[in-house]
Amino acid sequence: MRTIDWVDGRIHIIDQTLLPGEEVSLSLETVEEVAEAISSLRVRGAPALGVAGGLGVALAARRAREDGEDVGEAISRAASLLASTRPTAVNLRWGIERVEGVYDPSRPESVEDLIREARAMVEEDEKINRLIGEVGAGLIEGGSRVLTHCNAGALACVAHGTALSIVKVAHERGLVAGVTATETRPLLQGSRLTAWELKRMGVPHRVTIDSGAAGLIASGSIDVVVTGADRIAANGDVANKVGTYPLALAANASGVPFVVAAPLSTIDLATPDGGAIPIEERSASEVLEVNGLRIAPEGTEAYNPAFDVTPASLVSAIVTEAGIVRPGVDDLRTLFEEAPWVGETTG
Amino acid sequence: MRTIDWVDGRIHIIDQTLLPGEEVSLSLETVEEVAEAISSLRVRGAPALGVAGGLGVALAARRAREDGEDVGEAISRAASLLASTRPTAVNLRWGIERVEGVYDPSRPESVEDLIREARAMVEEDEKINRLIGEVGAGLIEGGSRVLTHCNAGALACVAHGTALSIVKVAHERGLVAGVTATETRPLLQGSRLTAWELKRMGVPHRVTIDSGAAGLIASGSIDVVVTGADRIAANGDVANKVGTYPLALAANASGVPFVVAAPLSTIDLATPDGGAIPIEERSASEVLEVNGLRIAPEGTEAYNPAFDVTPASLVSAIVTEAGIVRPGVDDLRTLFEEAPWVGETTG
Repeated sequence: MRTIDWVDGRIHIIDQTLLPGEEVSLSLETVEEVAEAISSLRVRGAPALGVAGGLGVALAARRAREDGEDVGEAISRAASLLASTRPTAVNLRWGIERVEGVYDPSRPESVEDLIREARAMVEEDEKINRLIGEVGAGLIEGGSRVLTHCNAGALACVAHGTALSIVKVAHERGLVAGVTATETRPLLQGSRLTAWELKRMGVPHRVTIDSGAAGLIASGSIDVVVTGADRIAANGDVANKVGTYPLALAANASGVPFVVAAPLSTIDLATPDGGAIPIEERSASEVLEVNGLRIAPEGTEAYNPAFDVTPASLVSAIVTEAGIVRPGVDDLRTLFEEAPWVGETTG
Repeated sequence: MRTIDWVDGRIHIIDQTLLPGEEVSLSLETVEEVAEAISSLRVRGAPALGVAGGLGVALAARRAREDGEDVGEAISRAASLLASTRPTAVNLRWGIERVEGVYDPSRPESVEDLIREARAMVEEDEKINRLIGEVGAGLIEGGSRVLTHCNAGALACVAHGTALSIVKVAHERGLVAGVTATETRPLLQGSRLTAWELKRMGVPHRVTIDSGAAGLIASGSIDVVVTGADRIAANGDVANKVGTYPLALAANASGVPFVVAAPLSTIDLATPDGGAIPIEERSASEVLEVNGLRIAPEGTEAYNPAFDVTPASLVSAIVTEAGIVRPGVDDLRTLFEEAPWVGETTG
């Protein structure tokens, strides 16, 4: 199952806002539809956003050529529209720029190259995430009780996932006793998406409220915490779904390993540390309304950041397709010297 | 406004499950109704539970006398029914035992003493909580941005509150720049109740998801964290609403004071430390359903503890009606030597 793909000149996605109740596939035909799908979190998760950005640019180029419009201008417009939807996710920008960079105004046929590049990203993402699982499963001991946050699964990628790819491979190797998924307010990606994926994988699992995880870790009921990432700075600071930082604090306080799983495209060497990462704030209504029903008094406002920053000092290991680094011990730059996938399909 | 009171031989409460949408007063006529109101969190909060326990025993005694039943037996039955509803809250047991202890089987008129004792608890609670506010406001500096968790307000007591009593007095003294209330999943006491109280007090406030608080503290946007407590062990470990512990970790990591406000009746010297406090687990449906709509896949289970334990080492100060102690520095026992209210009305 691919959660995002290029099919007959359109972008197919699973509408994640309807899970687990309904499994609905959407076929996106314009870059505006892609931007809406990203803003509304119909497609979400750092690696999937990279692919969505790349496919979105290719879609815009193709439409412009079909409609006899200026292809270069359509690509620029698509790139800035798509990049504005989620400011924290570095993969999105990376995917957009990668496909945009293939365009050659002197060769009209290069629109096909954009499509080829974007489709290569889909293939690559699938391989990379399987590899993250294989690399990361080496950190999981037999009988592990795993805790994860938000959804860093197949739904956040093309397939497999990042944190959940580790769980998947470790489960295939018989190493996972069970997984606790935090529900992940306000949009409940843990209860809705991660639980759905774990159920499909046949992994014993349960959900807890976000603020219940720290006590669970302190009580000795969790052996390892594994999360994804939305941007990793050069020093190893990790921006991820809001609520990741308190989990890292709790894991650290109890001596439980805190593992971050992400493709190399999530590491932004141009961002020196977490302080330089912009934190997206989302609509207050996500917090103040549940199923369209207001839960707080009229006039009460809300602070709704989508991410928080976990300092590198709390991160035990960052697992990528190119290997594992320990922030504070290893230099993240070494990963890029050994990366097996980077550049393979872009040359 | 009293949120719980004895009125014409019945117990009046505000039904907290309907706030902030509806303000409904209930008149409880039997101990079974009181037990149901406690289990369903129509009345909740450590000090209010103490009063509810005491009033519940008095109600049962009065009914038994009216109905010509064995009063002593009715009191015993009421005490064990009420105590079973919320195992973590030490105030509940304290309130039950205090009123139960007044009964003298050799004097049938002692039922009146039970009622007098229970009503004295109502008066006392109001005084104690105002005093907690006055004592605790001394810890609040000018322009403070306060963060609080769950509801430790008037709704959790007879009036004033514990943590929110401090906010109220500090606000009256012009010291509060604003309050951030965590929404407090699963039952959203922060969004529903604390925001409602802050709005009534005229305090500038906003709500955030529980897991957003740690990042907010790390970003330097919070000057002090103030919470209530459900049980404080002799060594200063604090059991409070689940999610308190990660707030204390975050406050500690950023050098922000973490203040716990509670009446002396919350301190249980018979409990040596947090490890000895039973943690109530509540129904999975509180986590897996929102407004009666299931959010997780069928078959997914939930872990739903009502409390967690914050180690004394993370607590900057415990504010009581008898003064302030710093766990690890001061002995909690000294509070009881100086308590102005303890025993005043029970002699």
